[in-house]
Amino acid sequence: MLKLYHAEPVANSLKSLIPLHEKGLQFESIYVDLHKFEQHQPWFTAINPEGQVPVLDHDGFIVTHTTVINEYLEDAFPDAPPLRPNEPKGNARMRYWNKFIDEHVMNYVSMHGWHRMVGVIARGIDSGEFETLVERIPLHEQREKWKTARSGFSEADLANATRKIEVAVDKVEDQLSKTPWLAGDMFTLADVNFFAHCGMMVARMFPDMDVPKRAPRLVDWVERVRTRPGVAAALAMPDHTNPALRTFTGHAR
Amino acid sequence: MLKLYHAEPVANSLKSLIPLHEKGLQFESIYVDLHKFEQHQPWFTAINPEGQVPVLDHDGFIVTHTTVINEYLEDAFPDAPPLRPNEPKGNARMRYWNKFIDEHVMNYVSMHGWHRMVGVIARGIDSGEFETLVERIPLHEQREKWKTARSGFSEADLANATRKIEVAVDKVEDQLSKTPWLAGDMFTLADVNFFAHCGMMVARMFPDMDVPKRAPRLVDWVERVRTRPGVAAALAMPDHTNPALRTFTGHAR
Repeated sequence: MLKLYHAEPVANSLKSLIPLHEKGLQFESIYVDLHKFEQHQPWFTAINPEGQVPVLDHDGFIVTHTTVINEYLEDAFPDAPPLRPNEPKGNARMRYWNKFIDEHVMNYVSMHGWHRMVGVIARGIDSGEFETLVERIPLHEQREKWKTARSGFSEADLANATRKIEVAVDKVEDQLSKTPWLAGDMFTLADVNFFAHCGMMVARMFPDMDVPKRAPRLVDWVERVRTRPGVAAALAMPDHTNPALRTFTGHAR
Repeated sequence: MLKLYHAEPVANSLKSLIPLHEKGLQFESIYVDLHKFEQHQPWFTAINPEGQVPVLDHDGFIVTHTTVINEYLEDAFPDAPPLRPNEPKGNARMRYWNKFIDEHVMNYVSMHGWHRMVGVIARGIDSGEFETLVERIPLHEQREKWKTARSGFSEADLANATRKIEVAVDKVEDQLSKTPWLAGDMFTLADVNFFAHCGMMVARMFPDMDVPKRAPRLVDWVERVRTRPGVAAALAMPDHTNPALRTFTGHAR
């Protein structure tokens, strides 16, 4: 029995929802309402002490962190359609990209998303209540991120994040001039990763980057990813984001 | 034919030297002299455009980034002694730790190492020459790190790095109260990773942490890792570090 605890179909949650759909795996979807800070409540931290979504529960075995979850699904369901090349060179190419996206892309797009959306939420909470909510967050880094979202990210940090995203867009565009997908001839977890954390929203979030002109292959790749049945099914899952905030996220939907 | 381009047997270079020795794989060792900035010279950036060691060359296929290299060795040499559980749950546990060490440990121990050692080197270079050397570094992040090493890391950044290392030491100590190795009953790439980036030098680098008292299981684990024949062979590889600087690294050798 597979369960996925997740939030809206974007970023981290989308990154693990896509493989479940692409691989045709039956799973129970358990929505965790980040707007109500459910991820920091005792019932949830009993499942994941780090207080973060998504979490995979496979017959009681708990897996956290999307890159780990997604390789777990490849290992645990070898008969389902693969999203990993399963030969040494292809795996290495896929893991190179996953590492790059995890360490040099994800947090930087996230910073802009938090700046635009979570900052609005954080500033809308009364002072005393905010402190109480932050106290409950298990991870130091997440507590700091919430405090910074409320006080505002610095211009220097935002500019550095934009620069990193530009590097990533150019790097992906270059790769797509050589291979149809990031790790070669096959759609893999690397494509899932970049799509969920950057590709799907980068053009809308950063109009100044002029992505259609700067990275036409990336635009074509986004369409190829988005129209895959498994991806489309994942994207069609419920989105409970406050509509007034949704425009800030640049969700390309 | 396997080749490894590497520097001294510590941190990143050690992290990939250990699996080669532990798995009993024949390889050509190619020493890259970081003291002479060979990793930024054209002959080397032709092999790895990112200008970083180590690099694995397997019959001309280039693999970079130690976590990727190490899983590649598992994939490419399935008949050699495994350092990966090769069953879904064990792999997930190993990858959880690898991700934690890659993202929350490695750079923070490295910052203290750079502060103590690379800063001395960087400040010993004349101004004009330093600019020329930095210009040649391919990765923006590495250029910034060299500049910061020269001007000095901030007290706040160093204190935050120390805090992260304390969290890691306590987390490993807790895990070792449950299982003999980080990912369970088997010595894996997760142990290799933590040993090379933190375990082998943490007690000497941070005497104020009182590691022997704070983390006795970690101290026992370090001994168990260090005395494995493959690890001992990797640690015995040549160390060209300037002896005057070696004391700054806290190398536990």
